[in-house]
Amino acid sequence: MSLLVTGSIGIDTVITPFGVSENCLGGSAIYFSMAASFFTPVRLVGVVGADCPFNLHKIFEGRNVDLRGLEVRQLAKTFRWKGSYHNTMSEAITENLELNVLTEEPPKLPDEFKDSKFVFLANTAPALQMELLKQVDSPAFAAADTMNCWIDGRPDDLRQLLAKIDCLVINAEEARALASQSNLAKAAEQILQMGPRILVIKKGESGSLLCAKDGARFALPAYLTTEVKDPTGAGDSFAGAMMGRLAEVGKSDFATLKEAIGYGTVAASFTISDFSLEGWKPISRSDIDARLKKLKELTSF
Amino acid sequence: MSLLVTGSIGIDTVITPFGVSENCLGGSAIYFSMAASFFTPVRLVGVVGADCPFNLHKIFEGRNVDLRGLEVRQLAKTFRWKGSYHNTMSEAITENLELNVLTEEPPKLPDEFKDSKFVFLANTAPALQMELLKQVDSPAFAAADTMNCWIDGRPDDLRQLLAKIDCLVINAEEARALASQSNLAKAAEQILQMGPRILVIKKGESGSLLCAKDGARFALPAYLTTEVKDPTGAGDSFAGAMMGRLAEVGKSDFATLKEAIGYGTVAASFTISDFSLEGWKPISRSDIDARLKKLKELTSF
Repeated sequence: MSLLVTGSIGIDTVITPFGVSENCLGGSAIYFSMAASFFTPVRLVGVVGADCPFNLHKIFEGRNVDLRGLEVRQLAKTFRWKGSYHNTMSEAITENLELNVLTEEPPKLPDEFKDSKFVFLANTAPALQMELLKQVDSPAFAAADTMNCWIDGRPDDLRQLLAKIDCLVINAEEARALASQSNLAKAAEQILQMGPRILVIKKGESGSLLCAKDGARFALPAYLTTEVKDPTGAGDSFAGAMMGRLAEVGKSDFATLKEAIGYGTVAASFTISDFSLEGWKPISRSDIDARLKKLKELTSF
Repeated sequence: MSLLVTGSIGIDTVITPFGVSENCLGGSAIYFSMAASFFTPVRLVGVVGADCPFNLHKIFEGRNVDLRGLEVRQLAKTFRWKGSYHNTMSEAITENLELNVLTEEPPKLPDEFKDSKFVFLANTAPALQMELLKQVDSPAFAAADTMNCWIDGRPDDLRQLLAKIDCLVINAEEARALASQSNLAKAAEQILQMGPRILVIKKGESGSLLCAKDGARFALPAYLTTEVKDPTGAGDSFAGAMMGRLAEVGKSDFATLKEAIGYGTVAASFTISDFSLEGWKPISRSDIDARLKKLKELTSF
C-alpha cells in the first residue's frame, strides 16, 4: 500500500569519535524514505532551499521514492544541523541549528498523494503535522513523531494531533515528559489514553517498546553490533522500515507491528554503521531479512 | 547442585521517590540468597558485626539458605550504606558508606561448603574473591561480580581473577571501563579474551546481555512493570536467580544460561517492586515461573 512521509531534508555536519562528516545529506524524511523504500514505494513530501547541494533524484536512484512532493523554494535556505556525539554516543549535542525553510509555510501535498493509506508525519510543529494530515483523504494508519520542544511548548496542539493519529513514535525521555511520569510502563498507559491506539518508544541502544491500547506489549533489544560510527538518523530509519513493512503487508495488527519493529531495529543498525546514508549503499532487501533473522536469534529463548 | 555465595550483608538506608526505608536489611549476599533459594539450596558466606539487628535465620525461615557460613564478629561493626534514587531511579547516589567489617579479614569458608559446585563471588576486592575461590575444592561454574573501584584500582588482581572464573557479571558502564571501549559489543569481545567463558552485562531498565567466548550472544529486555519502588538489590537478585537456576539444572550451556538470564530478569522485577526484601514476601516459585512466561511473551516475535 502507498506510504507517505512528511519531514525534514537537511544539510548536516556530524562529529563523532569516528570522524567528521561535513555538509552531508540528513533530515528525517531522508532517513525514513531510504529505509522504507526497501519495503514499499515511498511518497516523500519536504522542502529545501535553492542552496540545497543534493540531487535527491540521484540519491534515491533505483529506490522507489516518489519525489513529486519535493519542493525547492527559490528564496529560502535549506535546514541545517550541526551536532556531535561523544563517549557512548547515546546523546546528540546540537552545536548549530538553522531551521531556515522549516520555519516557513510547509510544502503542499500533491494531489497524487492524497490517497495515501499509510502516513508518517515526522517531527515538526504539531499544528503543521495536523494540517498535513488533513490533506490526506482517508489514511488507514497515520503515525507521528514529536519532540520535547512541542511537548513543552505546544501541548494543546499536540493533544489535538494525538486524538487524530493511530500511532505515536517517540523516544523514552519524550514519553516520560509527555506523561509527566518517570515509570515508562505507566507513561505508556497514560499516553495511550491520549488517543493513539499504538505507541512505539525508541530507546536507542536499549532497544524499543511497542504498546497497544488494548494492553499488548512487546519489548525488543537493539541489534548488537560492533559497527557504530554515527547514530544520526537511527530513529528516522527505524520509523521508515517500520512503516514500510506495515505498508508492504497492508496491515497494522499487533503481530505485524512486532515484526515491523524488528525491521525498524535492523534498519537503525544499518544507518548507524556509517555517516549519512553511507551505511545503506551496499544493502539489499536480502541483507535486511538476514539481519532480522539474526535479531530473532539474538532475542529468542 | 550446591550453590555458594560470598558477599556483603548490610544495614541500608534507602531514599527513593516512593519513600524512605531506614536501617533495612541489604547487601549483595542477602538479595542473591533470597532469589537463588527459589531454585536450589544456598550456602551463604558473609560477616556482620555485633551491632547487626537482623535475625537472618528468621528472615530466611522456610527458604533453603544454609547460614553456617555466617560469622558474627563481636568486635566489629556491620557494613552500612545509605543511598538515594531520583527521577527515573536509574542511578544510585551513595550518601553514606561505612565499610566497617568489610575492610577486615573475610569470613572463612566452612569445611562443609568446600565441595560447592556453583560459586558466586559478589563484589569485593578481587584478591579476596580469589582467596575465597581457592578454598572451594573443584567448582564447576564460578562467577564473580566486580565494580569500577576495582577495575580502576586493582586491575592486576582483577585480571588474575578473570583468568580463574567461568563467568563475569557486571553492568554496562563497568564493562566499558574494564575494556576501555565504549562500544558494548566490542567491549564484550575484549573481556571474554581476558578469561571468562561467559560474560553477563546488566543494563538495569534496559535489560541484559549474555555473551559467550564462542561468539554466541543473547539480548533480553527488562521485565516491563509499573511496580518499581526501590532498585536496590536488583543486580544481586538477578545474579541469584541466574546462578540458582544453573545450579538447579546442574548445567551452564548457552540454552540453560539464556533461561537463567530470564529468571534473573524476573527476580530483579520482584526485588524492585518494594524496599529491601519486602517484594519477595508474597512470592512463590509458581509466581516466578508465571512471570518468566510473561517475559517470554513480552519478547517473542
